[in-house]
Order: sequence, then C-alpha cells, then structure tokens
Amino acid sequence: MKSFGGKAGGYSAGIAQQYAPYLEAEWGLKNHWYPIFFSKEVAEGDVKGSTIAGYDIAVVRPKGGDGVYAVSDRCVHRGVKLSARPMCLTKDTVSCWYHGYTYKLADGNLETIIASPDDPVIGKTGIRTFPVEEVNGIIFVFVGDEDYAPIPPLAADVPIPITDDNKMPGVEDDVPYILGKNVYVRGIHRVGNANWRLAVENGFDPGHLLIHWDNPLVLAQDRQLPLGMKPTAPEAIEVIDREGGPKGIMNMYGTEHYRPVVENSRVNIKARGNNPMPLRTSMYVPGCLMVEHWPIKGVCQYEWYIPIDDKRHAYWEIIVAPCESEEQRQEWDFMFENFFEPLGLRDFNNNDLFAREQLQDYYENHGGWDREVLCDMDGVIIGWRKVAARFNRGIATSPKVRSAQSGVDGDDEY
Amino acid sequence: MKSFGGKAGGYSAGIAQQYAPYLEAEWGLKNHWYPIFFSKEVAEGDVKGSTIAGYDIAVVRPKGGDGVYAVSDRCVHRGVKLSARPMCLTKDTVSCWYHGYTYKLADGNLETIIASPDDPVIGKTGIRTFPVEEVNGIIFVFVGDEDYAPIPPLAADVPIPITDDNKMPGVEDDVPYILGKNVYVRGIHRVGNANWRLAVENGFDPGHLLIHWDNPLVLAQDRQLPLGMKPTAPEAIEVIDREGGPKGIMNMYGTEHYRPVVENSRVNIKARGNNPMPLRTSMYVPGCLMVEHWPIKGVCQYEWYIPIDDKRHAYWEIIVAPCESEEQRQEWDFMFENFFEPLGLRDFNNNDLFAREQLQDYYENHGGWDREVLCDMDGVIIGWRKVAARFNRGIATSPKVRSAQSGVDGDDEY
Amino acid sequence: MKSFGGKAGGYSAGIAQQYAPYLEAEWGLKNHWYPIFFSKEVAEGDVKGSTIAGYDIAVVRPKGGDGVYAVSDRCVHRGVKLSARPMCLTKDTVSCWYHGYTYKLADGNLETIIASPDDPVIGKTGIRTFPVEEVNGIIFVFVGDEDYAPIPPLAADVPIPITDDNKMPGVEDDVPYILGKNVYVRGIHRVGNANWRLAVENGFDPGHLLIHWDNPLVLAQDRQLPLGMKPTAPEAIEVIDREGGPKGIMNMYGTEHYRPVVENSRVNIKARGNNPMPLRTSMYVPGCLMVEHWPIKGVCQYEWYIPIDDKRHAYWEIIVAPCESEEQRQEWDFMFENFFEPLGLRDFNNNDLFAREQLQDYYENHGGWDREVLCDMDGVIIGWRKVAARFNRGIATSPKVRSAQSGVDGDDEY
Repeated sequence: MKSFGGKAGGYSAGIAQQYAPYLEAEWGLKNHWYPIFFSKEVAEGDVKGSTIAGYDIAVVRPKGGDGVYAVSDRCVHRGVKLSARPMCLTKDTVSCWYHGYTYKLADGNLETIIASPDDPVIGKTGIRTFPVEEVNGIIFVFVGDEDYAPIPPLAADVPIPITDDNKMPGVEDDVPYILGKNVYVRGIHRVGNANWRLAVENGFDPGHLLIHWDNPLVLAQDRQLPLGMKPTAPEAIEVIDREGGPKGIMNMYGTEHYRPVVENSRVNIKARGNNPMPLRTSMYVPGCLMVEHWPIKGVCQYEWYIPIDDKRHAYWEIIVAPCESEEQRQEWDFMFENFFEPLGLRDFNNNDLFAREQLQDYYENHGGWDREVLCDMDGVIIGWRKVAARFNRGIATSPKVRSAQSGVDGDDEY
Repeated sequence: MKSFGGKAGGYSAGIAQQYAPYLEAEWGLKNHWYPIFFSKEVAEGDVKGSTIAGYDIAVVRPKGGDGVYAVSDRCVHRGVKLSARPMCLTKDTVSCWYHGYTYKLADGNLETIIASPDDPVIGKTGIRTFPVEEVNGIIFVFVGDEDYAPIPPLAADVPIPITDDNKMPGVEDDVPYILGKNVYVRGIHRVGNANWRLAVENGFDPGHLLIHWDNPLVLAQDRQLPLGMKPTAPEAIEVIDREGGPKGIMNMYGTEHYRPVVENSRVNIKARGNNPMPLRTSMYVPGCLMVEHWPIKGVCQYEWYIPIDDKRHAYWEIIVAPCESEEQRQEWDFMFENFFEPLGLRDFNNNDLFAREQLQDYYENHGGWDREVLCDMDGVIIGWRKVAARFNRGIATSPKVRSAQSGVDGDDEY
Repeated sequence: MKSFGGKAGGYSAGIAQQYAPYLEAEWGLKNHWYPIFFSKEVAEGDVKGSTIAGYDIAVVRPKGGDGVYAVSDRCVHRGVKLSARPMCLTKDTVSCWYHGYTYKLADGNLETIIASPDDPVIGKTGIRTFPVEEVNGIIFVFVGDEDYAPIPPLAADVPIPITDDNKMPGVEDDVPYILGKNVYVRGIHRVGNANWRLAVENGFDPGHLLIHWDNPLVLAQDRQLPLGMKPTAPEAIEVIDREGGPKGIMNMYGTEHYRPVVENSRVNIKARGNNPMPLRTSMYVPGCLMVEHWPIKGVCQYEWYIPIDDKRHAYWEIIVAPCESEEQRQEWDFMFENFFEPLGLRDFNNNDLFAREQLQDYYENHGGWDREVLCDMDGVIIGWRKVAARFNRGIATSPKVRSAQSGVDGDDEY
C-alpha cells in the first residue's frame, strides 16, 4: 500500500491561513442580522425565546402595542429565561414570571419589581436589547455586541436583489426579492445537528448535486439535474461585494465557466431528465443562500443556516414568489402546502440536512478542518470561506467565554 | 444604551465572601441526616439503593429481622451495586448478587464469599455502614465521613418543633412535629434537575410567590396569597441556632416586619382572594423546609432538597398532620390522595420544581453565582447562605475526588 | 468501625504492574482479527459500517463480484461515512454518496470523482483498506496499523481446536472448531454498554456462575451448575501459548484443581440440579471465549467482546455445532431458533451482559482498576490480564489521539 499523506492533492493545507478567522467561527458570525421567528409565531402578548450564536434572545409582541421587541432572554436577577413563561403585562414592559423583575422594552431598564416596587436596584440595572426589524412576515434581529454602531441596514445581510443587470444568463423570468414589495413569503425552520459552517457549505456546493440525482421532485419534473457542476475557469465564481451592501459569492451557473456533468463512465452513472430547468445559487454573509428559479421558474428559495451553538444550527427554508393579489396569495398557499413544502422543503432538502449532519462527527472529532482533501468543485467553498473571513463584522465566542471574560456578558446585562 | 455593569444594585458581589463555603458545596453538605426512603418503599428482604451527595447507599431490611440497615451500595470486590439485584439471604447479612461477597449488616465486615468460603480476604475487608433511623414511616441515614463522631441526634437536622413559645403570631392552631407522636406522615419524592442549593433557595423565597399567584389551589381556596412578601426591617428574618439543635432561618411572616404586597400598579397586577390563610416558612441545615399551616391550617408541609450529585436533587414533599386514631388516619389518607397530593404536592409544587430547573443553566453555565443581581426580597436567601456556610458539618466532594484523594473512598470501603 | 484500607487482602495492588499495558488498553488491542459482520448481514451491493477499537470500517460486497472488501468508512474528501448511504456502482469500486469520490476496493485508491473525472486529486489520495477473511458465515477483518506486516493467520486469533490431546477430562464427545469444515455456525451480536475488558473478564470468571444459579435454562436441564468454581492449585489455570498460534488461558475444569462449590452454609444457599453436564471455558487474545459443551454436550459457544470505543463493546455470541448435511443444518436451525437463541444467547446470557454493564460505572468513574479487592477465584482473571498484556500485537488509541498525533490517521487515509 502506498502512503500519500493526509493532504495529497487537497486544497486546504496550503490556503487555510487565507481564511483563518472562519476556522475560529464555530459559534458563528456576530454583528449581523438573522431571522429569528416568522411573524405569525409571535402572537400578541407572547414572549418567544431563541438562541442565536449563543445569545439567548426573547422576542416580545405586547398586546395592543405597535410591534415587536427583542431583549435578552435572561432575567438579570437569577438568569431564568423570560420566555419560559411569558408575562407581558403592559404595552411597554416585559416581566419575569419568577420574581417579577420588570423591564422596559424600549431600553431594557429595570422599571419595577412586582412585589418590591421601591427596591433600590430599580433603575440601576436592566437587560440588554437587540435591534429588530419585521419585514414580509419575518422578524429579524441584529445579533452581537451591544455597543456595535452604526447598525447596518438589514438589506446588507440578505442576498442581493436580482435585476436585469445581474440576471442568470438565458433565463427571461424575474425572481422576487425577499425584502421586496408584492411578494409571497412563507417557509419553515427546524434544528440541524451540525455546525452552521457545514450547513452553509453544503447549500451551494456544486458537487453535492449527486445526493439529489434520484430525488422524486427531480424525477417528477423530468428535470435535467446534473450529477455535479464542474468549474472550468476562475470566472465560475464571482465575489459579490457591494458598497454598504451584501457580501457573498455566486456560482456562475448558466455561463460557459461551469460545465454540467451528466455522466461518469468509469462507474456507469447517468443523470436523468429531459427538461432543462436552470437554477443559480449564491451565498451571503452571515450565511444566507439564494437559489434562483427553484423549485420552479420565477420562484426563489432562500435558506439560512443560523448558529445556535457550536454544534447545532437553525435551518430556515423560505419560498419567495411574486404576488400581487389576495387571490394569488391563496394560490401560492395551495402550492406551498401541497407541493413546495412536502416535496421541496421536506423531501428534497431532507437530503441536504442529512448530508450536513453526516459531516459533523468528522469536523468535530476527527480533525476535519485540517484533514479534508478538497477537489476542483470545492473552489467556491474556499471562496466562501475567504469571503466570510473577510467581510464578517465579528466572530462570536461561546457564552461561557463571554461570561468569564468580563463579568458583564453581552447576552444579558448592560 | 447605558451600561451599569454586572453587579449594579445587586447584593452578591460584596458579600459572597461571607458564605464562601456554601459556594463550594455543589455536592451538598455532609455529616448530616437525610431521608432516603419511605419505610414502605423497603419491604422485607429488599435491598434498595439511592445516592446522596455522591454516596451510593443501600438500605436493607432483612426478612424476619429487626429493622433496617444502611451500607455502602458498592461491593468491595468489583464495585457493582448491591441494590442492582437484591440478595439478602440471612437476617444479619447482605450478599452481592455477582460473586457472592457477603457482608455483615451490623458492621459491613466481609463474612463469607459464597463459592470461596475459606478465602483469605474474608474478615480482612468490608464495606462501610451508615447510621440509620426509622421514624414515623421515614428512613433517615447519616451521610458523610465514616469516622465522624459523635453522631448528632436526628432532631438536630430537622425543623424545630413549633410550640406556644414560637407559634406564628395570630394563628391559634398547633402544627404537628414530623418526629412527634400521634402524627400522620405521608409524602412523595422525585428527582429535580437542578443543584440542591437552587432548590433550597426557591423553597422559602418571599419573592417566588408570584409563580403561584394564578394557581388553582390558591384560587379554589379563595386564599389571599400575596404577589410577594417585602421585608421592611432586619427583624423580618430570624436565625435559628439552638444549642445542639437545628440551625436554620425563618421568615417572620405574621409580624410587621414583612409586608404582603398584593398589587403593583406599574404593571396592573393584583393578587386575588378573600380568605386570609396565614402560613410561615423556615429552612434548616442541611436543606429542609417547613411550611406551617399549609396546605391547610393545622397541617404542616416539610420538604427536603437532597443532593444526588452536583446537578440533581431528590425533591421530598411530606404532609404532616395531627392524628390520634385509625379513623383519623383513614380520613387523612382520603385527603392526601384526593387533595394534598394532586392539587398541592403535584400541581402547586410543580411550579416550584419548574422554577428551580429553570435556574440551573444560568448557575451551571453562565456564572450565575457571581452574576446574579439580588433585591430586597432576597435578604433571607443571603441569610440562609450564611447559616448553611456556618453550621454545616462538612462540605461533600465528588466521588471522583474522594476516590482519587485517598484510594480509600468514603463511600464504599473501610 | 475498623479500617482495613482499600486493598486489604486483594490481589491487584501488588501485581498490577505485571499487566500494565492491559490497563492502558481501554480502546482495545490492535493488529488482531475481529469478526465484523455475519456474511448474511452484507448483501450484494451493500456497504455496511461498523467501528472496532475506534476504527470506522466499511464492508463492501459488490454486486456480481467475488467477495467482500473492507475499507475505511471515512471518505477522504470530507469524512462522511461511506456506509451512511451505500453506493457501490461497479464490481471493483465503492463511491461516496455525497460528492462521488470513488475508491478502488482492492487498494483504496481514488479512481474517479463522479462529476470531476479529470480532477488533479485523482490517483493521488485514497482511503486505507483492511485485510478481510470470510469463513463459515462470518466476515473477519484485521484491525490496526495499516503497515502492520506480516498479517498473521486468522487462526492465530481464534480459540484453539479441541482434539483428543486437549479434550476436557471425562467427556467423550468432540467439540467442533469454528474455522473447521462441516460445522454449523450461527449467532447474534449486540451492543453492550461496558468497556470490552469488563466484558471479557465476566465471560470465563469462575465466580460469576452465581448469577446463573436460578436460571430457567439451568433448571429446565436439571443441570448441576455449581455456585462457583474454587481453584485449589495453580494448575487450575493453564496458559495457552502456541507457536504462531492462539494465545489464551484455560480454566482446567474437570480436573482436581478446581472444586465445584455447591453450597454455602453461612448463608443457606445450595445449587440445584441432578444432571452432571460438564463444560469448560477458555479465553483468547484479543478477547474471544470458548465454552465447550454448551449449551448442550457436543456443541460449542464462542463469544467475542469487541471494543467499539472505550465505553462500549460489540457482544458476539455464536453457536458452533457439527453438521454434515442439509438435513442436519435444518435441525440445528430449528434448535437455534427455538432453544439456543431464546433460552441461551438471550435469557441466560442477558445476565452476563447485565453484570458487565453494572461494572462499568465503578471502573470508569470510581477508580475500579486500582480499588478492586479480588479473591481466590479471580486468579484466572489476573492470568488473563497478563496474557493479554504480553501477547497483544498493539494497544489501540482513541481516534482523537490518532488524528492529532499524525495528521495521517490510521483509520481513514493512506
């Protein structure tokens, strides 16, 4: 038996230093906008909790109020989660269900303690708040350092709008913009047992198409899905770096720089399908995928891979479609419930979730980041790592590190 | 946004050094009496195992014998638990089910090995024993160092008897004493996923009443339960320190030093109820609560929060009622099964268990002991911490530390 | 209470240095043959994965090929398990289901990448292979260092054949050899939650018979099973050390050097049964037990305790019977399905599995290896430890250590 050594022919060894910050980002990128809940998940009077990059965040929509707020989901008193038992008694406050510490939603200030209304601690402490935006049925929060300023616009952290200037070659139809007007936006989210980076890297990987080659959705559409996409020139990959806008990387599918591979004779495998149904993928910091013309032409699928902690991510899958009327919205609901979700977001994308979760053990326990042996198709993944290393606004650390470092933890006190 | 720093207005930072030993007691207090089983849980011939403060203890009630014994639940041979498969073949011994190592119950001495009755090891080794007492249907063991002497009386580690001298002001009825004569004693125990100290601190916390304000038991009794109790003077809290007797701390409810708070106008919350039904709480080392006149007048609820390991406690809830006859006992059984247990020990106290378990993550993983921001109502908790730090008879360490330190582990060899 | 100290009368303290390598072998012995699957578990076209001593191994049986292959179950690309989704497209290759890295089964060489057939990495890397043998319905792999040479014969790692020269005294019948001709071989395997050494040590322990004294199989056969076997001279134990052949240790049951103990009057226990049904046990490196004449005369039970990781073992139980015809095979199938498996391999041996799992906590968390207090009956266990320490061909380390040490991990790259 020969011995080639661990890195023979692989990409990573030589160039890992070019994306070193990415390798440290196991807890995610901070000072970015992330979706946290769909609007309909937070009813009036509700306090819903979620954890992003180790930050415990409560989203509150007071009854009769004028929108949603995001605050630390840790009561400053003894650290229980406000969301464990929602207690929102007024339009402008949220109370802790345990001892009644009551915080002003606007600034997190401790306003009163229910049974100790004259307590000396009132007005001298509080919980931190998070910037929040609610657009097209999605609640976004800006997660990171409390003193980060200025807060960039939400649009800087979502995929670019597709216009006539940057359309996929050869496809006439428009694709809708997730923050745009007159769009239908609906999706799901669930927990994936893999680090967020492994999830991201699967999303737009030109080589991962093989896991879908026998998928019912593809076969039912008689879609020409190749076994993989082979880059033939550096121009296969385009870095997106807009002034003040999104940073990302795009697979230039539809150009001559990517060659669809539909068979491999060494192992007798052939892609099926007669319908050419082009799609294009691109990925944006802090980890949002856009798949244009998927699962059908004129529709766009967005995905987020949001760090919960260093071992799990929230997997968001959203369908965005053009929509000008209530009638059309009902038609999209019908399609979503009977086609997009069951066959696309579930059956098709379950394969992606499976694949990412299969990567976790190797990268967590077997030194995968150092030992991987990449190939030509992974060029865009290396590209993404560099983009993420360069354009992130901060690397999140674990809550343990944060609380040990300062005594003042970014996630629950100010 | 302002920044107040982690400790603004909180108690802990300045005074934690006053109860430093308490902060190290994650595995519990040792050299104290703890309940281990209800008598009816250990039938004749049975060998039942439990772990207290990391000590694995087997309680044995031989057939035809004269009571119960407590010994290490680890066979000296290869460390399996005797209780895993009870094998009690004579009145004065317990045998290991695996290879037949047989120990004398009185002193733990290795009496014989079933298939090696002339083995040289016989008589030269053994397992340690634990002092045991069985009172009013509860089996208590003295848990700690094998050579601790003299063993204090059981009464030194349970709540004080309430007599005319120390009755709650304004309440005529007597409350029964758990170790007294003519009492009805019945309860339950279960496992709570929180450190024992967090469980203790919830038990008699004047601020935690808020979690019960909407409870069915309270509403059904039309009971005037305040939203919290606000101390107005240092005399609100009394340290109990009897010569040779129990050490503890009492909330002086029923005096002018505690003001029931029944509403907070800032957040529009009001307590309900028209029946004044006073109760009083006190807590004793090593972690036993007494609630006088609860769940009804003249009855007393006792609770223990017994460390299993550093993350779990056994939660004991016991009803003690005066009882002079078999007829009365049957009446209490009816009340216990249909009222006290379902509405009190379960539905009402489930809220307490929930609250403690919610604390665990913060204190275990987010530096809660250093970062908590306490308020006026927490004075009694600080008081308890000092009492526990001062009056405990030893701080338990983990079994790993114990076995590494000496080669002779307190929990299974002598 | 007296204090004897931890080691009073025990064997281990003084002599543990004589088997020191054994104490380090928590991940198992390497450079040995182990069974990995029954032949019928790996159908044509299948890729089945298992982990032995921390090595992830895929067994592949290509369609229309000429047998089975064993290769690393980690794709060199990004480390997913090939067995997670079997993809065996040709007679001589196995492909990774994720991106199509395709390896030659004969040498592990990277032959092609499905969608990147001209990739520069092809031919320059690969996965390691493992020697494999398929005998009498069992697939064996040689697990350990990739460059270990020469590979010893399989027969060196299985129990010795029993011939007229080494028959158990007083028993006329032959017992069959697991690698022999004209034998019936059938069994089961399952996972045990204990370190492999604890499993081995239970298997042939003369003192553990006590756990079987009340077993239905024993009672139904009216078998004279003693409570334990007491060695009366050093000759009770024989070390097996054949030139180039198996290394092991045998309990010389059936000689005067072992005395069956059938009662212990101190604790009033007596063995039952009137049928003398002799059996004999011996154990071989790397951890294979032979029980001659069990569960019935003329039949042999083999057991393997195969390290998966440091806390779990694969428990293999195999019945070997003489078999000359298809008719006889069908008769053994009937016996296996209705007697050997339900009453023997399951009901009887479940007690052994239970006992081993009970040992784990003490040896893992309470310093059992240092603190055990052994007795006369444990002489053969000490003997085994020395044999294993002396004759193993290497001590396995954890995958984390392996991947950290070299960057080239024994289990997945060459």
